Amino acid sequence: MRILGIDPGYAQTGWGVVESDGQHNRPVSFGVIKTSPTQPDCERIHFIAKSIGALALENKVTICGMEDIFFTKNVSSAIPVAKVIGACIHQLALLEIPVRLYSPPTIKSAVTGYGGAEKHQVQEMVRILLGFEKIPKPDHASDALAAALCLAVYDFAQIRMKL
Amino acid sequence: MRILGIDPGYAQTGWGVVESDGQHNRPVSFGVIKTSPTQPDCERIHFIAKSIGALALENKVTICGMEDIFFTKNVSSAIPVAKVIGACIHQLALLEIPVRLYSPPTIKSAVTGYGGAEKHQVQEMVRILLGFEKIPKPDHASDALAAALCLAVYDFAQIRMKL
Repeated sequence: MRILGIDPGYAQTGWGVVESDGQHNRPVSFGVIKTSPTQPDCERIHFIAKSIGALALENKVTICGMEDIFFTKNVSSAIPVAKVIGACIHQLALLEIPVRLYSPPTIKSAVTGYGGAEKHQVQEMVRILLGFEKIPKPDHASDALAAALCLAVYDFAQIRMKL
Repeated sequence: MRILGIDPGYAQTGWGVVESDGQHNRPVSFGVIKTSPTQPDCERIHFIAKSIGALALENKVTICGMEDIFFTKNVSSAIPVAKVIGACIHQLALLEIPVRLYSPPTIKSAVTGYGGAEKHQVQEMVRILLGFEKIPKPDHASDALAAALCLAVYDFAQIRMKL
């Protein structure tokens, strides 16, 4: 099963593909999609969602785990990210790829065993679980791989039964 | 020019199509897209965006005016609406239909001349400007027609030059 992990963002959306049999996880590919503040907002959203669709097809992804907005004090930054999430959900649904949304503490808990883990601890566990020598960079790509691993940990049994 | 107005929402997304030559505006069609709280979140977002795409094609829409999130105290309701906005932006971009986002005060100001107008005053102006006998119902459809009229008022000259 190929899982696409997404760490949605306006300036940088991290993505990572993990192959999983529910017990063993292997990294396939990862990176970030960048947009420029000089682009109109609607173009940025469209570009990110279009790119996610292309990556999903290219990497033969069967399911997606995406980091959701966490209730935050910073509404002004949460709103654009929520727009990106909605656009990606729609794009993946058009490709008939199911999407699971996870809060940041859920992802942290799945990867490290503790929902209040530090960013660096999560990244280190991503490195170990996927057998990398160094922490995958940039940070957004590492966070996307964590979202993919979260799906592998929590949902694998349930999903295999449904597919 | 055919303008699609959208009042995005999770339970109900209002839509309305207005034909405009920049001076005269004629209503074409309007309504609401409903989703149920029993549907999974991702399905609701996808259904709304897919329906907006179908309506845009069916009504031969050339451009879209959409109500944007206004900075609100109620973050928990703003986040799902922002996801719907993002999904609709992406769907319309796939159809090469440009989208303009307007804040509620901008729409109120375009339709009534005053950004702090009451909801009922906006609806009454929508009724008058589009030659309806009664205020179009439900409220979300009327709000969507207001977003379409806002585009007709503010952007018409500029858009005609570009198209």
